[in-house]
Amino acid sequence: MTVGDALGQANSPLPPSRKGVLYGVGLGPGAPDLMTLRAARLIADADVIAYPTLAGGESFARAIAADVIPQGVPEIVMDVPMTVARAPAQASYDSGAAEIAKVLDSGQDVVCLCEGDPFFYGSFMYVFARLSARYDVEVVPGVTSITACAARASKPLAARNERLTVLPGPLPEDELRNRIDGAESVVVMKVGRHLPKIRAVIAALGLTDQAVYVARATLEDEIVLPLADAPEAAPYFSMILLTKGADPWL
Amino acid sequence: MTVGDALGQANSPLPPSRKGVLYGVGLGPGAPDLMTLRAARLIADADVIAYPTLAGGESFARAIAADVIPQGVPEIVMDVPMTVARAPAQASYDSGAAEIAKVLDSGQDVVCLCEGDPFFYGSFMYVFARLSARYDVEVVPGVTSITACAARASKPLAARNERLTVLPGPLPEDELRNRIDGAESVVVMKVGRHLPKIRAVIAALGLTDQAVYVARATLEDEIVLPLADAPEAAPYFSMILLTKGADPWL
Repeated sequence: MTVGDALGQANSPLPPSRKGVLYGVGLGPGAPDLMTLRAARLIADADVIAYPTLAGGESFARAIAADVIPQGVPEIVMDVPMTVARAPAQASYDSGAAEIAKVLDSGQDVVCLCEGDPFFYGSFMYVFARLSARYDVEVVPGVTSITACAARASKPLAARNERLTVLPGPLPEDELRNRIDGAESVVVMKVGRHLPKIRAVIAALGLTDQAVYVARATLEDEIVLPLADAPEAAPYFSMILLTKGADPWL
Repeated sequence: MTVGDALGQANSPLPPSRKGVLYGVGLGPGAPDLMTLRAARLIADADVIAYPTLAGGESFARAIAADVIPQGVPEIVMDVPMTVARAPAQASYDSGAAEIAKVLDSGQDVVCLCEGDPFFYGSFMYVFARLSARYDVEVVPGVTSITACAARASKPLAARNERLTVLPGPLPEDELRNRIDGAESVVVMKVGRHLPKIRAVIAALGLTDQAVYVARATLEDEIVLPLADAPEAAPYFSMILLTKGADPWL
């Protein structure tokens, strides 16, 4: 089924025998007006919305979409505990997926809110894995944090035939070193508490002067700094851009 | 200057002494409703728009934005010849940048239309390189083709601590082989006439069964197929997704 078909069905009354459609909707990096027109329309027309929260905190995804969420629409909250053990998080996605499935079985659609892009390091993948075999799922891509950070840092990510490598900050120090060394453009995501380790790796490779630190890109409290000037403590939503190769003149 | 400040200025009359702002606006992968709310507002309010065309053909960027471009707004067209030599393309960006600079000097803003994201393999980088030292430039990120293709193929790109590697299809065969081998999630962009070479590399690595071919994602004539079933001839706007590692259960 194409996105167009799905939208058409979402906008017309569903026969009772028809299952609802699950939409995984990317909301972009944080500024509400960086969500797509399609995302805004799907949320405004939603029967039911769903989103994750971390350890009972506020949902970043819900905060991005707040202005377009209809008054009084039912909300399915998946509270994901922050534990090293995986079972508690799996259990919360299991029960969230079961709640969503009930709504879909009733013929109503569910719009699952996803910060950034649903398939780019997004928690929607865990909902998708649990429901995609049984229900129609439409994923609406969103602006990722990597191009948002590049825009805010005025650093082109990759041009022409350059390679781009995206590395999660939690990777072990030696793996980070090996992957950054010999790469071209590099983005290190999910910096957070891994900043000292990542900074040491980049310094050891002599690349600190080419590195930019960006935290909470496009939000009110955004920070864009040369890595050398970055604070000691970084939030989870921060990254480091290392663009070595761009040839701006084409 | 923050995006917010820039938007504020764009919406208020500029004193004659004030230079205009150049906006590099990402439009997403092709479906018009995958442009961001900010992109749509900036284009609708534009004093002047600018965009590239390839060898006198239609501009894909302009086609994506067609419904929101104001009637009669002045348009600066940068016609980029498709030549192996780089000088002709450089010359067209030089003259395009000079035209844009004239408008900015007059105090008017220019909205440069960019398919996908301006800093992700985007031609806007060549305009940016020519003007960013002299003018305020605001880059508005857009949905990239890689997350759009992943959404349409129902293939998560990367989760948790997976690495993602983006490779341009024109890279030499041995470099493609070395970079794909030992990578985790891989996206090969700009497939086009390089499809036979890329297909051979992926087959030699025994990864054909994990590879998906996506062409013109989100457009009417979109194609999503297992790589084994891909046509012989691929358009420029096509890519191959190789997602090896995703652990969907968290």
